[in-house]
Amino acid sequence: MNRVYNFNPGPATLPLDVLKEVQAEFLDFDETGMSIVEVSHRAKPYEKVHNQAKADILELMNLGDDYEVLFIQGGASLQFAMIPMNFASKDKLGSYAVTGIFARNAYKEAVNLGVAKLAASTEDENFARVPCQNELKVDSNSAYLHICMNNTIYGTEYHYIPEVEVPLFADMSSDMLSRPLDFKKFSLIYAGVQKNLGPAGVVIVVAKKSLIEKSLDSLPTMLRYDTFYNKNSLYNTPPTFSIYVVGKVAQWIKNNGGLKVMAQRNLKKAQLLYNVIDESDGFYKGHAQEDSRSLMNVTFRLPNEELEKKFVAEALANNISGVKGHRLVGGMRASIYNAMPIEGAEVLAEFMKKFQRKNKG
Amino acid sequence: MNRVYNFNPGPATLPLDVLKEVQAEFLDFDETGMSIVEVSHRAKPYEKVHNQAKADILELMNLGDDYEVLFIQGGASLQFAMIPMNFASKDKLGSYAVTGIFARNAYKEAVNLGVAKLAASTEDENFARVPCQNELKVDSNSAYLHICMNNTIYGTEYHYIPEVEVPLFADMSSDMLSRPLDFKKFSLIYAGVQKNLGPAGVVIVVAKKSLIEKSLDSLPTMLRYDTFYNKNSLYNTPPTFSIYVVGKVAQWIKNNGGLKVMAQRNLKKAQLLYNVIDESDGFYKGHAQEDSRSLMNVTFRLPNEELEKKFVAEALANNISGVKGHRLVGGMRASIYNAMPIEGAEVLAEFMKKFQRKNKG
Repeated sequence: MNRVYNFNPGPATLPLDVLKEVQAEFLDFDETGMSIVEVSHRAKPYEKVHNQAKADILELMNLGDDYEVLFIQGGASLQFAMIPMNFASKDKLGSYAVTGIFARNAYKEAVNLGVAKLAASTEDENFARVPCQNELKVDSNSAYLHICMNNTIYGTEYHYIPEVEVPLFADMSSDMLSRPLDFKKFSLIYAGVQKNLGPAGVVIVVAKKSLIEKSLDSLPTMLRYDTFYNKNSLYNTPPTFSIYVVGKVAQWIKNNGGLKVMAQRNLKKAQLLYNVIDESDGFYKGHAQEDSRSLMNVTFRLPNEELEKKFVAEALANNISGVKGHRLVGGMRASIYNAMPIEGAEVLAEFMKKFQRKNKG
Repeated sequence: MNRVYNFNPGPATLPLDVLKEVQAEFLDFDETGMSIVEVSHRAKPYEKVHNQAKADILELMNLGDDYEVLFIQGGASLQFAMIPMNFASKDKLGSYAVTGIFARNAYKEAVNLGVAKLAASTEDENFARVPCQNELKVDSNSAYLHICMNNTIYGTEYHYIPEVEVPLFADMSSDMLSRPLDFKKFSLIYAGVQKNLGPAGVVIVVAKKSLIEKSLDSLPTMLRYDTFYNKNSLYNTPPTFSIYVVGKVAQWIKNNGGLKVMAQRNLKKAQLLYNVIDESDGFYKGHAQEDSRSLMNVTFRLPNEELEKKFVAEALANNISGVKGHRLVGGMRASIYNAMPIEGAEVLAEFMKKFQRKNKG
């Protein structure tokens, strides 16, 4: 097997040990005589998987039983709508910090519902940074402040937790469980798992129980948080395979030192790449401002688009896949989530240096 | 490997050949050097899977390019809300035939939105049958008639396609692709795949393009059918693994004779079980009326609950899993979807006869 270094932003690389485990037990899960994808979501062998995954996520985040873990389908994009539908109103608007495409999409859903207020935007600066604390204008009557913790496309990330009087909500799709944070400062956190945590198909929502125990009766069943809360995310058939793999990834994080060690490894990988950029005499230009640099997605340009195309092609020939950036930023993006080995970042860093030597003109 | 006969209603048994293929290529999909769950949804190897699955589904249903296949998350339960939100209004109600729990849940979502009309109900008869054609009261101004083609819990199924003046919508979660039908008579068909078609996590929607090409702007992005239609179900990250397996199941159906052969096999399995019931001198009592009997879910009671418990336990000891019925019907339910081998139905039929001989009192 020729395993590539997969720098795709999501779906993204997963721990090889986890994939091997899934493969090994794929035809007979836990001596049930069936595949995990054939096991009833009401059967004990699956319930064990489901509840263990929830417990491990809370444990990794150091959260107590005043928080609940929900598994919801539809991607972060459905959360963009569910959040204002459940928590905002014309009298109590949702406040949004717009720091990238997904943050803006979240804001737009609330605008469409007529319940949005802009707290900050860095759109004028092509989203090259996140706002600092005193740029956040949050009305004390807001239902919440919504932020996108890590902006996958632009390669920016908050390196502080906003202090606000209102409940803090965060889309952590691309950096959940990548580093320890004081998660208690958040009332609701959510993440599409396909970046850092598992196979596409489920969103993890971690929320204060007091927030989600009763939803508006006017909302459709599947758009009410209390449907998921009251039924342990088993009101209807959940995406069992995605949850099962997420559970294994959470175990893998625990077995490898937890969020502290993840953060150390992620920092090391990011430094390897940012150092090459900073020491390239301008050959590589980082998109993100230094104090907003993401530890998950490293975005950078080359001197011209021709070299950028060449970079992508030669990288692939060197077993480095998925480094083409998003069209809105151009250039390159290296996504270095938890499961990317340090060796992968080393290989990319060496390739970048070699590519520069050969092409500096 | 001790593979059981899995009679669970969903998640349910899948073709062993498909599971083996998934396992064999799980660490390296299509020579990409990564697992299918790590492949970007924007990358060609995945797009091929996605588009092939769509094409195979349409081909199996003998539908032309005036129909579109969508992949949507959230289960059939989210469709219960999306359908009235997209197509019904206070002026143009949605009509519903209530023939079981899921059919009633669909109706309730429309009631909650204030856009529902009851076309028929067999609730008074404990859902032991589906209505016949002339019981369906559908106002010609209805936005649609919604039916649930096969009622998993009660074990009933339509053996005719209702003739109505308004667009016909059907939840086929538990019998889609189990038999040939004149699918052109339907405007919208949907199915959560975890019963007959793949791993939980995706709903297949097959709809007339003219119906879904433009949705109401007031709806949230992820609740608009045109979001999925205009972006080939790739607006956001789809549940790639579920779609990939569904594609393999569709191929397996094609390679095994298509819907005609599936229907023959399914009929044979159902007859094996219904014959035991009918020839048991009342020891086994079928729940469904004969003309509404499902070919997918065979429901029956035993003389008393003690014997029912014993049946479940002894079945399991004989490698027969998942035959306990839903609490609303009690007794037994044997789900015999496409992937259940005829041998499985034979083993269960023999077990039933033996159990009766030993326990007829």
